[in-house]
Amino acid sequence: IHEPPHSFDPRSLLSSLSVDVQLLLSQIADLSTFSDTPAPAITRILYSEKDVLARRYVKNLLGLAGLSVREDAVGNMFGRWDGYEPELAPVATGSHIDAIPYSGIYDGVVGVLGAIEAINTLKRSGYKPKRSLEVIVFTSEEPTRFGIGCVGSHLYDIPYNLTFECSRLMARNEAVMKALKTTFDKQNISFLEAARSAGYAKGVDDLSSVFLKEGCYSAFVELHIEQGPILDAEGISIGVVTAIAAPATLIVDFEGNGGHAGGVLMPHRNDAGLAAAELALDVEKYVLESGSIDTVGTVGILQLHPGAINSIPSKAHLTIGMVITWLEVAEDTRDIDEKRRNEVIEKIHESAVAIARKRGVNLSFKILNQDPPAHSDKSVIEAVEVASKELNLTHKRMISRAYHDSLFMAGVSPMGMIFIPCYKGHSHKPEEYASSQDIENGVKVLFLTLAKLSST
Amino acid sequence: IHEPPHSFDPRSLLSSLSVDVQLLLSQIADLSTFSDTPAPAITRILYSEKDVLARRYVKNLLGLAGLSVREDAVGNMFGRWDGYEPELAPVATGSHIDAIPYSGIYDGVVGVLGAIEAINTLKRSGYKPKRSLEVIVFTSEEPTRFGIGCVGSHLYDIPYNLTFECSRLMARNEAVMKALKTTFDKQNISFLEAARSAGYAKGVDDLSSVFLKEGCYSAFVELHIEQGPILDAEGISIGVVTAIAAPATLIVDFEGNGGHAGGVLMPHRNDAGLAAAELALDVEKYVLESGSIDTVGTVGILQLHPGAINSIPSKAHLTIGMVITWLEVAEDTRDIDEKRRNEVIEKIHESAVAIARKRGVNLSFKILNQDPPAHSDKSVIEAVEVASKELNLTHKRMISRAYHDSLFMAGVSPMGMIFIPCYKGHSHKPEEYASSQDIENGVKVLFLTLAKLSST
Ligand SMILES: [Mn+2]
Ligand SMILES: [Mn+2]
Ligand SMILES: [Mn+2]
Ligand SMILES: [Mn+2]
Repeated sequence: IHEPPHSFDPRSLLSSLSVDVQLLLSQIADLSTFSDTPAPAITRILYSEKDVLARRYVKNLLGLAGLSVREDAVGNMFGRWDGYEPELAPVATGSHIDAIPYSGIYDGVVGVLGAIEAINTLKRSGYKPKRSLEVIVFTSEEPTRFGIGCVGSHLYDIPYNLTFECSRLMARNEAVMKALKTTFDKQNISFLEAARSAGYAKGVDDLSSVFLKEGCYSAFVELHIEQGPILDAEGISIGVVTAIAAPATLIVDFEGNGGHAGGVLMPHRNDAGLAAAELALDVEKYVLESGSIDTVGTVGILQLHPGAINSIPSKAHLTIGMVITWLEVAEDTRDIDEKRRNEVIEKIHESAVAIARKRGVNLSFKILNQDPPAHSDKSVIEAVEVASKELNLTHKRMISRAYHDSLFMAGVSPMGMIFIPCYKGHSHKPEEYASSQDIENGVKVLFLTLAKLSST
Repeated sequence: IHEPPHSFDPRSLLSSLSVDVQLLLSQIADLSTFSDTPAPAITRILYSEKDVLARRYVKNLLGLAGLSVREDAVGNMFGRWDGYEPELAPVATGSHIDAIPYSGIYDGVVGVLGAIEAINTLKRSGYKPKRSLEVIVFTSEEPTRFGIGCVGSHLYDIPYNLTFECSRLMARNEAVMKALKTTFDKQNISFLEAARSAGYAKGVDDLSSVFLKEGCYSAFVELHIEQGPILDAEGISIGVVTAIAAPATLIVDFEGNGGHAGGVLMPHRNDAGLAAAELALDVEKYVLESGSIDTVGTVGILQLHPGAINSIPSKAHLTIGMVITWLEVAEDTRDIDEKRRNEVIEKIHESAVAIARKRGVNLSFKILNQDPPAHSDKSVIEAVEVASKELNLTHKRMISRAYHDSLFMAGVSPMGMIFIPCYKGHSHKPEEYASSQDIENGVKVLFLTLAKLSST
């Protein structure tokens, strides 16, 4: 039979598979030095000085890998290796390098530096891709600075209203530009100003150049630590992600009169902080009452104003992250679980209204995002499973409870994810740890998966 | 009868009483410009640039009033007008100029600039004091920066332990120096470093020079806005303070494992933020259950770590300010009410222990201070009442629910306070307001009170 000159052959690739895991570990260690907090507590905030330095470091590695590098107006980086049929839609892989305050060194980073090492390994093996391969480094996967996560992969609209319509994946349109122009960080710096200070969006007011078009990639696959305890507990090497959970973010503000903590008697108070405390506990209560072990809800931010020992809080600001996941990936349960999450959100809203009325405080309740879940594509799932089998690695299908850029890439491309174990599921804290063996396994699976997906 | 040449004569003083209230208001307005937040929201933090500028402004006024100015190692300022019997213990008056974040322009300031104007008025009237008169500007009445209030008037020891012994007014001793050396602000700057950056404590490691000795003043009187609604609501011009409430401050920290808000299921969490929310609501509950309208408790600070949308809080830091006041000033009820406050603190402690056990979080529970109440001295109360009568001003005896430097001055001197109304009791927020008429009344009462106290 006739085959193209460089077709996919896992056996020959396997024989030449030589991941330089020591180099990769040293790069992970290098990248961890770009942090606003001392190691092992990583803090790398979008467009900060340390983020810019980290981007420069990664950009250099993309160049050293022989990739042609492009940066877009928000700082997404793309490193392309042209295939021998460059007119075909490329296969992409990648993740993020930003880090929430006091987090760990592996989240996102394994999927970026691991992707570059997978490409280097493919090149060393003599493999020639039919489809072009791209490494993507996404801007602001973490929502730390502007409250919006996965900016690079999915710029979604700022809220919304009190009706609980599901937002669905939004068209990348005028609304996005408007949202980014009206989004400010705590220092009142706009997203666009911040982007410009980091060297992006120069002379650009229209970010439509950033928007990826549906079909722009033939597949997207992201290597990532699990950020949960399952693979570590069960001693399994590879998680084959079949679906990504559906996050929702609520922004709640209470406002009362404040006043002197000694001077104002209890009956005359309308303490915004206590309203917030009540709502935080109600979030936990309604999540637990939802009847689904996979429903989680978290008040990650709770800020009091003015925040003084002897002042009654006049303002309280909460963000509530709601995630619903599902045990079955069948299409019919997806809708059931999304409905369950939205019912919990509705209860939280009713509770916030009741607390505000009871305590005489004003309420602002916004749904920042309420995204639907995403399913991995069968082609990517199977490529990851085949790769794991070829490598004799234990593997299992699982869902991702944390969201990732892949959730939004599902809107433009067939998508899948490769999980590796992380110690006790620790993530978003300094204890986050992935072993060199697990990282090497992940890069090997990515190597074979990219080869398979780019050869057809 | 034989009388000294310049003895106290209210009638002649009254005829020459000419408070320059317009000048005083313009000085209050001037001082309000030294703030880290735009007017009318005042923020003037201990030893900050704006605090140093405000100190310089006030020091200049003390000099212009012909007072001999001394600053001690923590920045307390003393402006002395020598009496004709300078060997007698002086009469002192004063307050503070620091301001908690987003507060108002009158708290403390009226008692400092009003005292200088009272001195100027006394000088203009031709009055010659027998005892020397001193204006004191106290350092850090507000606990904002280092968690310790009334630093200048009472440097008290940092805690302590879980036994609920009442600390009582502590001896000003080695323990104080140790406490100040081990106290750091949020930027990890020590109290002494901060003092040095503001130009104080130069080459000084031993702050014993700051400590006032018992009997160093024959009387201390502080003019202050009420910071409560009573005088304003009842249309009364002058509050004669008979006692100052007994504050206590608790510092509570919970610590759990944190983790990724999407990845960790609810049963595996030990959310420090929810522990804090529960305790905040318990504080309110136990205060309300105490059976005393005058018992108040406030969670003014609640900080979550890392404070990110998608992170489970691993640490929560609360400060709880507890104040118990009492309606009767009889000696026998004082102890009853202090006991009641300490019972509430004991309940809060038990609750914190129970919450920590239930939620699997670690607990640190400290009593930063647990001061006893202070009573005004009969001599000062009567001088203020006589002055109010001479001026035909409506007045009433009342207690101060907010604490003041006067609370601690009671440890070294007979003490009293003059309250003036403030609009609706607003304080510690930008809405704080005292009318020019009420400020003028307060300065007139202070004028006569100082004359009376310094003439005997
Ligand atoms: Mn993350
Ligand atoms: Mn990530
Ligand atoms: Mn105050
Ligand atoms: Mn004050």
